[in-house]
Amino acid sequence: MARPEHTTKIFDSDLEDLVLAITEMGGLAERQIAEAINALTTRDVRRAQRIITADAKIDAMQRNIEEKAVEVIARRQPVADDLRQVIGILRIANEVERIGDLAKNIGKRIIAIKGEDAPRTTMSGVDHMATLMLGQLRDVLDSFASRDVGKAVKVWMLDQDIDHLCTSLFQELLAYMMRRPVDSSLGAHLLFCTKNLERMGDHATNIAEAIHYMIRGEAFSKERPKADFTSALTVAMGRPTPGG
Amino acid sequence: MARPEHTTKIFDSDLEDLVLAITEMGGLAERQIAEAINALTTRDVRRAQRIITADAKIDAMQRNIEEKAVEVIARRQPVADDLRQVIGILRIANEVERIGDLAKNIGKRIIAIKGEDAPRTTMSGVDHMATLMLGQLRDVLDSFASRDVGKAVKVWMLDQDIDHLCTSLFQELLAYMMRRPVDSSLGAHLLFCTKNLERMGDHATNIAEAIHYMIRGEAFSKERPKADFTSALTVAMGRPTPGG
Repeated sequence: MARPEHTTKIFDSDLEDLVLAITEMGGLAERQIAEAINALTTRDVRRAQRIITADAKIDAMQRNIEEKAVEVIARRQPVADDLRQVIGILRIANEVERIGDLAKNIGKRIIAIKGEDAPRTTMSGVDHMATLMLGQLRDVLDSFASRDVGKAVKVWMLDQDIDHLCTSLFQELLAYMMRRPVDSSLGAHLLFCTKNLERMGDHATNIAEAIHYMIRGEAFSKERPKADFTSALTVAMGRPTPGG
Repeated sequence: MARPEHTTKIFDSDLEDLVLAITEMGGLAERQIAEAINALTTRDVRRAQRIITADAKIDAMQRNIEEKAVEVIARRQPVADDLRQVIGILRIANEVERIGDLAKNIGKRIIAIKGEDAPRTTMSGVDHMATLMLGQLRDVLDSFASRDVGKAVKVWMLDQDIDHLCTSLFQELLAYMMRRPVDSSLGAHLLFCTKNLERMGDHATNIAEAIHYMIRGEAFSKERPKADFTSALTVAMGRPTPGG
């Protein structure tokens, strides 16, 4: 269905604005994770407090993107591929916002465990997992900016590394809690931090799926694309469903 | 801005369909929670498996609502109050889907802890919290169906009870893990189940906020309505921000 050229141009410009807004929001989420890793490693309570405060900005960005995207849909009435771009952006904004919430939650836990001595090997495991997760978010945001579906699929596949690391950290933390029952509360907070990182990884794979949908133009199906995509690759790779 | 009567009628009918779809989706989420409580109390692994399987239906429902809502926005170009109804529905569908995910996760944990003996008093605490949470979801869905903003606000305020219960269950579970370090794994799964219930409560309050937005017509603001709403009531009630 051909549309007048000026309409197309206005839509393209709207879309560019939305893409830019996602990039900016994603950049802030990246910084929040980097800050969370730093605050967790150095047990920096003031830095943790700043992470908690900064999350409101990510929330506001998501709300703005949602508002603008709905306005674009209502005003430009995009169809097919164009509509898919706007919906994909709405979904990605939602995922990034959830990643932000998880970083904020890590901030709260850093404050809760201040003064308690964490086991050094476990902390280095958490640090490693967080760094891996940050790389995944960077890669998936790059794949969004460059519309590189291959890179998005790679992020999707690499998520299993984060899941494996999470499982082994869980075992390590539980063993630590058994050895030192008095540190159960610290251990539980670290379990939740680890789980938060794993969930961030899941959100990065959801972003990868949204990018796949935007570029490859998969039709809506009764099943969530996530489930389809997941189960297909699960069969191929013997990979368990993420998300615990 | 007056619109032709037939346009209004078509939009109203579209909206009714969406409201009905939310009601159906919410009903399924309620059943999933009730099943999860039952499976957790009786440690029924087959029931837990059914919960996991049934979650795909909630996911599909959300995807359908999203698809239909976007179609309504694109075709009918609703403005002001009408647009707010559709956006509110999109948000509520998103929250209910997340509640479904959390019920599914409890199902997975029931399977993971099969055969392990859980402390009776803690289990009855978890049961109590889950029942409270189910009541909250029912009430907020009722308030959606009857457009009763007072009831929605009540759900919002009662969430603190779930938060308090969660805190005391956490303390109980940690004490149990200290006493019986060998049961740390079981304890950790129950910690996550408890946390899942608390997060369901947060989603119920998000639904309450969406209803408030739909009915009272609060304008979009730079801050998330959640944050505004939360901080306003936090100041009034000395209530800590939910969400751990």
